[in-house]
Amino acid sequence: MIYFDNGATTFPKPRSVVNAVERTMRYYGANPGRSGHKMSLKASEIMYDCRKNAAEFFNADSPENIVFAYNCTTALNFVIKGILKEGDHAVISSLEHNAVLRPLESMKENGVEYSIADYSPDDEETIDNFRNAIRPNTKLVICTHASNVFGVKLPVERIAALCRIHGVLFCVDAAQTAGVVPISLKDSCIDFLCTAGHKGLYGPMGTGILAINSEILPESLIQGGTGSFSSDRKQPSILPDRYESGTPNLPGIAGLNEGIKFVMKKTERNIEKYESDLALRLYQKLKKIPGVLLYTDSPKPHRSVPVISFNIDGLDSEETSTILDKRFNIAVRAGLHCAPLAHEFFGTQDSGTVRTVLSVFSTREQVDYFASSIMTINKFKKELKKVAIDI
Amino acid sequence: MIYFDNGATTFPKPRSVVNAVERTMRYYGANPGRSGHKMSLKASEIMYDCRKNAAEFFNADSPENIVFAYNCTTALNFVIKGILKEGDHAVISSLEHNAVLRPLESMKENGVEYSIADYSPDDEETIDNFRNAIRPNTKLVICTHASNVFGVKLPVERIAALCRIHGVLFCVDAAQTAGVVPISLKDSCIDFLCTAGHKGLYGPMGTGILAINSEILPESLIQGGTGSFSSDRKQPSILPDRYESGTPNLPGIAGLNEGIKFVMKKTERNIEKYESDLALRLYQKLKKIPGVLLYTDSPKPHRSVPVISFNIDGLDSEETSTILDKRFNIAVRAGLHCAPLAHEFFGTQDSGTVRTVLSVFSTREQVDYFASSIMTINKFKKELKKVAIDI
Repeated sequence: MIYFDNGATTFPKPRSVVNAVERTMRYYGANPGRSGHKMSLKASEIMYDCRKNAAEFFNADSPENIVFAYNCTTALNFVIKGILKEGDHAVISSLEHNAVLRPLESMKENGVEYSIADYSPDDEETIDNFRNAIRPNTKLVICTHASNVFGVKLPVERIAALCRIHGVLFCVDAAQTAGVVPISLKDSCIDFLCTAGHKGLYGPMGTGILAINSEILPESLIQGGTGSFSSDRKQPSILPDRYESGTPNLPGIAGLNEGIKFVMKKTERNIEKYESDLALRLYQKLKKIPGVLLYTDSPKPHRSVPVISFNIDGLDSEETSTILDKRFNIAVRAGLHCAPLAHEFFGTQDSGTVRTVLSVFSTREQVDYFASSIMTINKFKKELKKVAIDI
Repeated sequence: MIYFDNGATTFPKPRSVVNAVERTMRYYGANPGRSGHKMSLKASEIMYDCRKNAAEFFNADSPENIVFAYNCTTALNFVIKGILKEGDHAVISSLEHNAVLRPLESMKENGVEYSIADYSPDDEETIDNFRNAIRPNTKLVICTHASNVFGVKLPVERIAALCRIHGVLFCVDAAQTAGVVPISLKDSCIDFLCTAGHKGLYGPMGTGILAINSEILPESLIQGGTGSFSSDRKQPSILPDRYESGTPNLPGIAGLNEGIKFVMKKTERNIEKYESDLALRLYQKLKKIPGVLLYTDSPKPHRSVPVISFNIDGLDSEETSTILDKRFNIAVRAGLHCAPLAHEFFGTQDSGTVRTVLSVFSTREQVDYFASSIMTINKFKKELKKVAIDI
């Protein structure tokens, strides 16, 4: 199967990642940070090593500033729910995922409001939109680093600086960019970075990261045993214990550690270059097919990540993806991609889109086969429509 | 290494569990419930199969009543934070873990109060204590099924019935009992059951379950993309999507599924019998050693789970566990076990305890070696004390 659904999760994973998960389950499967015996200490070491590598990777202050979470959504909830209180206001971009939108929507009941600053392909305009959306009671700005549907990037470093000037905390959702676009926390005004461990960082599903670059800390959303200060009924206030309650996903974190090391070895610059070149090739080939609708300009490094959304005129996005799966053995995602605002912005709220996302394991041959498959589908769409309906 | 730290997490895991994790990572590593291609459908099937087996295991209404969470702590937070509002009162037992205590403590700021009903070895007294603690504004009772430190069981079915009579919701923390003590939701008045996937269910760390047996549903604590109703800014209200936001721990859940199947095949009755016999053997051997302090009566099936806490007179619990690790290659946990109330109740808040927890992989030979090691430590404690200090 040709897997171009890397926006949902990357596949395959590097061999080192799979091996680390397996090794941890077979040999080091004790609970980290709870007991003092050698297997538990080994488990703690694995956790710490991943924290250290993640801190180095994002250029965070210290390993303790790396918090492990179930997924990026949970990390975002930690920030949003931990910072915003009754009477507060938040600003988000018009490309946000439901992982940002739904927590904020739920907080309306608690007297928290939010505004949407429109994305524009012109960075100046985007910055203006954010500036205009900030109010005296704005406490937090949350912005995706790049759209999970259309791949376009937002100038998060500039928005972060704008927020710092206005005394507003800034959180970036780097789910689609970590591992592809370099981020240096120490060199930016980003306060909180949330990301998935299982996408561009090539870790297993069930891993997310909240990297903290702020003195102001969100209140904890989930409290429980931390293996520290056990006699205290209050959640410890120190990092990372403040946010890490209960048993962590040790095998997942062991895998994530290898994923981060894999990306560090390849370097994000090289990954970005490789994937951008492939994405451009794909875009140009799709662009030449008359019935194909594309929604963005040609992908450019520094302006977008290798995510391309399209449709074939006369076919639903779901039909196209079903035909790709059944007849061409190609995996993509279709429909709405948990980001209704982004679809509204690009006018695809009714049609959805077929989304292709590349990874370091994608090849030119796969891209060419994909493009020729789309050409075939476009040519025989009437006949192939039945394939989709028959299922 | 002899691993008697199964209260923290069980080790080893059944081979089928490790294999399922590895297989999922290697062959079915797509995001479940997001895309429509065959690999994603296979991933969804794995999730559903685990839900189905867990529902059957706990005798829940339907697979949808099984919610996957990061760990038991998260599941407990989902219930506690999702049910209790300002002005509400909760009741907990005196044996609760910090996973219950700390969320409640944090909610004091939001005007939520809680009372503690004392555990008693006499069930009638325990029931009386719970009855007396219930107030007109009591909305939720949370009770551990068995103490994670001392192994003693609480009569949760009876407390559940009491709660139903008083119109109070009841949540059981089955972290230490699921997989050892049978629980049938349909036959009980338990509204919410929270448990870890990586203890008696033999799944990987990073898995927890919230099983719902109530028409009244907690509000969701974490919102985000669910792969369903994507155009809706509100979190879906249906189960399990209501509580499952973002990418789940698919490899972990695949492993958990095999763990549950492993327990179902062995049957909990047989597991309970096997572990109780071993625990009794261990208890009796320890009891004969003059310097050993035990805190509970002899373990009995239906009255306790195979968790034994003890100390050696003249040694800190940490010292004993360090000596066990360094000199005898035995893994146990020492200190306070994230359950300060339980330690207060048994008078071990200063000393902590050495905790041994058995699993189906524990053997009589291990128990005998363990007991003889304790005998040796007790005999040469002055000399061995140095071992602990030297580290």
